[in-house]
Amino acid sequence: MAGNSIGQLFKLSTFGESHGPALGGVVDGCPPGLELNEADLQHDLDRRKPGQSRYTTARREADEVKILSGVFEGKTTGTSIGLVIENTDQRSKDYSKIKDVFRPGHGDYSYWHKYGVRDYRGGGRSSARETAIRVAAGAIAKKYLKQFHGIEVRGCLSQLGPIKAQQYDWNEVHNNAFFFPDASQIDALDEYMRDLKKQGDSIGAKVTVVAKSVPVGLGEPVFDRLDAELAHSLMSINAVKGVEIGDGFAVVEQKGSQGRDELTPQGFTSNHAGGVLAGISTGQDIVASIALKPTSSITVVGQSINTRNEAVEMITKGRHDPCVGIRAVPIAEAMMAITLMDHLLRQRAQNPHVAHEFGPIPGQK
Amino acid sequence: MAGNSIGQLFKLSTFGESHGPALGGVVDGCPPGLELNEADLQHDLDRRKPGQSRYTTARREADEVKILSGVFEGKTTGTSIGLVIENTDQRSKDYSKIKDVFRPGHGDYSYWHKYGVRDYRGGGRSSARETAIRVAAGAIAKKYLKQFHGIEVRGCLSQLGPIKAQQYDWNEVHNNAFFFPDASQIDALDEYMRDLKKQGDSIGAKVTVVAKSVPVGLGEPVFDRLDAELAHSLMSINAVKGVEIGDGFAVVEQKGSQGRDELTPQGFTSNHAGGVLAGISTGQDIVASIALKPTSSITVVGQSINTRNEAVEMITKGRHDPCVGIRAVPIAEAMMAITLMDHLLRQRAQNPHVAHEFGPIPGQK
Amino acid sequence: MAGNSIGQLFKLSTFGESHGPALGGVVDGCPPGLELNEADLQHDLDRRKPGQSRYTTARREADEVKILSGVFEGKTTGTSIGLVIENTDQRSKDYSKIKDVFRPGHGDYSYWHKYGVRDYRGGGRSSARETAIRVAAGAIAKKYLKQFHGIEVRGCLSQLGPIKAQQYDWNEVHNNAFFFPDASQIDALDEYMRDLKKQGDSIGAKVTVVAKSVPVGLGEPVFDRLDAELAHSLMSINAVKGVEIGDGFAVVEQKGSQGRDELTPQGFTSNHAGGVLAGISTGQDIVASIALKPTSSITVVGQSINTRNEAVEMITKGRHDPCVGIRAVPIAEAMMAITLMDHLLRQRAQNPHVAHEFGPIPGQK
Amino acid sequence: MAGNSIGQLFKLSTFGESHGPALGGVVDGCPPGLELNEADLQHDLDRRKPGQSRYTTARREADEVKILSGVFEGKTTGTSIGLVIENTDQRSKDYSKIKDVFRPGHGDYSYWHKYGVRDYRGGGRSSARETAIRVAAGAIAKKYLKQFHGIEVRGCLSQLGPIKAQQYDWNEVHNNAFFFPDASQIDALDEYMRDLKKQGDSIGAKVTVVAKSVPVGLGEPVFDRLDAELAHSLMSINAVKGVEIGDGFAVVEQKGSQGRDELTPQGFTSNHAGGVLAGISTGQDIVASIALKPTSSITVVGQSINTRNEAVEMITKGRHDPCVGIRAVPIAEAMMAITLMDHLLRQRAQNPHVAHEFGPIPGQK
Repeated sequence: MAGNSIGQLFKLSTFGESHGPALGGVVDGCPPGLELNEADLQHDLDRRKPGQSRYTTARREADEVKILSGVFEGKTTGTSIGLVIENTDQRSKDYSKIKDVFRPGHGDYSYWHKYGVRDYRGGGRSSARETAIRVAAGAIAKKYLKQFHGIEVRGCLSQLGPIKAQQYDWNEVHNNAFFFPDASQIDALDEYMRDLKKQGDSIGAKVTVVAKSVPVGLGEPVFDRLDAELAHSLMSINAVKGVEIGDGFAVVEQKGSQGRDELTPQGFTSNHAGGVLAGISTGQDIVASIALKPTSSITVVGQSINTRNEAVEMITKGRHDPCVGIRAVPIAEAMMAITLMDHLLRQRAQNPHVAHEFGPIPGQK
Repeated sequence: MAGNSIGQLFKLSTFGESHGPALGGVVDGCPPGLELNEADLQHDLDRRKPGQSRYTTARREADEVKILSGVFEGKTTGTSIGLVIENTDQRSKDYSKIKDVFRPGHGDYSYWHKYGVRDYRGGGRSSARETAIRVAAGAIAKKYLKQFHGIEVRGCLSQLGPIKAQQYDWNEVHNNAFFFPDASQIDALDEYMRDLKKQGDSIGAKVTVVAKSVPVGLGEPVFDRLDAELAHSLMSINAVKGVEIGDGFAVVEQKGSQGRDELTPQGFTSNHAGGVLAGISTGQDIVASIALKPTSSITVVGQSINTRNEAVEMITKGRHDPCVGIRAVPIAEAMMAITLMDHLLRQRAQNPHVAHEFGPIPGQK
Repeated sequence: MAGNSIGQLFKLSTFGESHGPALGGVVDGCPPGLELNEADLQHDLDRRKPGQSRYTTARREADEVKILSGVFEGKTTGTSIGLVIENTDQRSKDYSKIKDVFRPGHGDYSYWHKYGVRDYRGGGRSSARETAIRVAAGAIAKKYLKQFHGIEVRGCLSQLGPIKAQQYDWNEVHNNAFFFPDASQIDALDEYMRDLKKQGDSIGAKVTVVAKSVPVGLGEPVFDRLDAELAHSLMSINAVKGVEIGDGFAVVEQKGSQGRDELTPQGFTSNHAGGVLAGISTGQDIVASIALKPTSSITVVGQSINTRNEAVEMITKGRHDPCVGIRAVPIAEAMMAITLMDHLLRQRAQNPHVAHEFGPIPGQK
Repeated sequence: MAGNSIGQLFKLSTFGESHGPALGGVVDGCPPGLELNEADLQHDLDRRKPGQSRYTTARREADEVKILSGVFEGKTTGTSIGLVIENTDQRSKDYSKIKDVFRPGHGDYSYWHKYGVRDYRGGGRSSARETAIRVAAGAIAKKYLKQFHGIEVRGCLSQLGPIKAQQYDWNEVHNNAFFFPDASQIDALDEYMRDLKKQGDSIGAKVTVVAKSVPVGLGEPVFDRLDAELAHSLMSINAVKGVEIGDGFAVVEQKGSQGRDELTPQGFTSNHAGGVLAGISTGQDIVASIALKPTSSITVVGQSINTRNEAVEMITKGRHDPCVGIRAVPIAEAMMAITLMDHLLRQRAQNPHVAHEFGPIPGQK
């Protein structure tokens, strides 16, 4: 309980169910002086929004975010920023059939046993809809990191089922509905998704996020390592079952003479470590990848039980993403940005030299 | 900064450098009434201890833990438990050669840039020696989980370089110096390690930890998911570059019809999810794996720089583990146990029914 | 920064400025199963609301709270509860006169120097308006404490300027606009306030809050003492300059033979300690008092400066409470309830016996 | 539980019982570069130490603190600082008489009911001996605040029973065993204490702590107000029953025209607020006072019960302070210093301009 917050100095606390009146959150710890308006948040929200292409759910949510506090005359004031997104597409329908049934692969079973009650109209807090607020909060962090420190956080779909990106062209990511960085495989992706739709099935995916121009020194060497906190924030995204930093699981078969990143007076010669050594950023790109499982909301019949422990057969009709990994790209960017922002502020507290680029505060010597 | 604690209700705060007088920590939040003495902690410390076999470093540390508080008449009192392990094997030697040099693949570079100072005699807080206190604290959590809830946390080396365990026999884990669960491959491991030693090189590894008999309901559905907090605690172990829950990265190529764990009145038919759905335990085994990179402390020459940004050639002599993954097994068990213990207490706060097996407290109605 | 949350297991995070679109917050950690609707919160909000009598500000705010999440079919679900109160009475007026001026006794000066920017239309986050969300959150805690544990939190105005309550009749508190427990002095209060209004001045006050039927054992013996956390939460109310537990500052002149609360088989013979010994509740009433300074928003001319450090003369016109202590009564109750609720959950985590009165969760053994 | 830590960015976690082998703690978050050795801590520990004068307990504890980590070549490294103080004067004696008895006015009753077990040889964690580690940690904070920011934290005994300081001469504080700032009343104090000793009784006291040269801007405007966190940290000291900031409870009878601190181009004209407005430091002296109750460890017979709820008569023999307020002076200084240090680091995170006096970190641009 009380598990709806993340971050220490840049802290996001969220609320809201998919079928309630609204989602919302509090972003606490954004420094004063950042130019901010709702359009800044809307851009990433629109990237995450359902209904953007035929590859994602046909549900339509306006996902219009309102800033309720913390911004005055177009700039952040240093006080907490209240965010709300109203739920507009809650179709009224008959939920009595699924009320007492646990969808296999979903949180229904664990959730119901934990709380003894659940909002059976949707996934409750387990709904991926909750991530909309993360994306809005992440957009604040991204803007701050970019504007004051030149740090850029970008993500892409690096693999969808069997189809892997062979090249990473960040410009290409914006050109296709998959956030895929490899133009040569867009047709293959398109064909794969059409087949999948016919089968009524879903597929897993891998998402890679990269932060450029991160200063050396972010992260703590023991429990609050930058990589450990990235693992936390990225694994907290729905459907994620694995997190890698840099080479990730490939290191299992590496030798030490291969895997170490050597140093020269001109800089590192490689980046196997993904920009983190001893839990602290090295100044190289921070590289993290996540594995997203295929959604269990499919029309292939599955076995399950109800709350009376009786066997039932289930299919999950409705408007669902056949590959939840696609829309996870902006969410992963948001989580990485939130974690980096938190560590940037923490490093400032300890090492006041980090932020010399700031001019004086008006009214202070 | 202030990043040396983990856990909310079962909280470990640690201190100590490899070359200072001692390591230590505070375990805060252990409930009263657990029988506990130093021998309970020593068992796991001895499993982690260097010098136990020819496959690990020849350094010898007594690693004798002292309990300084929180235990009275052989039982925990509910107050904070102070732990100290003295450093006994700090060879006095001449560190002047490595004082200004960054070992490639180590935290020296990021650490020095973060703090502007470092204890050049060892890795400072980045030293794997720091994990001894985690193992001691984890042993407390393991004992509590076992005794009051029947939960058992076990780990093994599931892969060393190219050699993967083909079968998981938990009894075998105790029979070999690799914590390997597959007796048929011990000879191959032995041979591999001999060759590696001749090369002066090191190798990566994969460690798998499993918790049995975990009750359904541990974990929170949003940021403090059980899997997200496991990712945090496991990724905070030195050299870990990846964390998987259940099928992990294999889900990328799975279809939804394959990957979902179906339910029958007799229980789940599979455990692809690794015992966690929507961030909440399902009552199945919690299964997590981590990838550990090969140590960079090898005798193969590497390029690096010194603090004056001059090129230097380096080899790291000394007594180092050719595969740090081996000794990581008890460390990973400890981190999983600490995270489970924390969530068990959190679940109790929210759902008082979890702990009905407890008898009355003496003196209370 | 990131200072807009209170509590660990029952956690309130708030946002909102007095002159922005809305106030709001997230209540994280309310257990499932509590019957809750907006009317439950509105009762205390109405007690705090301005414009209720001629003794408080004539500003009119509807202060209608909306529950945006965490409640389903009339009961809490265990997930975070989103709360919003729209600001309806933001008179559009010309703020240019006060834009660059620091009102003496207000946070304008410290606030502006801290952030370098402030919402000059009101007190920003320093506005007492922020406490409306505390009262709403406190009403949730109060209901839970009452319903599941029989704990009752009540407050009253125990002193206004020179007029002290001589007797404490809790029924009387609801009969007058001062929340005063002593019927014999209502006329004196009325007369005092009329005089004050003529002078254009304001007056300090003392508020006392009492919690009945608190179980023995809440609170921790070192830093998170129940009394220390009450001091924190009560001192965080606007205008509070002192906090007392039990006899408070009277202990300075007490002897040990007078001040100790003796025990008999029938219970304690006195309650000098205010229900807390060694930071832990004793099972007696928890008694705390706070001192509230007179508001500086008065029409008596005062000296101040502007942001250019030039001398200015100021009076604060507008609709202000001549005694902010009156409306602080429900706020103090809310803060005590939030702190008790947090410690109740913490005690449950450690001592599962606290909550034996709960029935089984549906679906669990 | 898990209540043995205080602070967010400068965090102290402690352990240790009065009759166990040692006390200790972890100071997490001290920035690198502070010159520090054990003598720096010993000075304040000696001021707190028992047996320093005939007015305090005759128990003798060496109270020698050891620094186990976090300092290298005479300077802090930015990593966590481990502290240990061995208990040397644990007289072995027969505790069987007090084993089952609750001393009135002590935490025995609440403590035992909370945990169901207690270390009956002393107060366990409720023992004032626990504060030795606070004093050691506070000395680190005090040195940092002084050296890098010119902030000075000083305390004195401002009242003992009926005897109040009429003047505050900080030089006098070091000249007498009472930490009393008024030389004219030392004889009266001496006489009062002699009488008290004859009676076998104890007396309450008031301690005042003042921080000079605190920059404007420390503290957050809502829950984490500087005054609220000071109230928390000061109320967490044993025997404290009240906390005041600035004028404290005197504000109850003040009018707004008296109590506001007016501003002129030359600065504030008064400091009724005690240096805190809207929870944020104003740049004036931070002034806080605490009320300490008389110890219940007296030889005047009192009524109590045992664990079988039988009436018993008690006197507490042994070596106890007749006025615990005296030795509380360095403890209160320590707690104020820890809280200021925490807020200084927090302000830096938000406002990087605070620490411009720092030179560059070696090796960084």
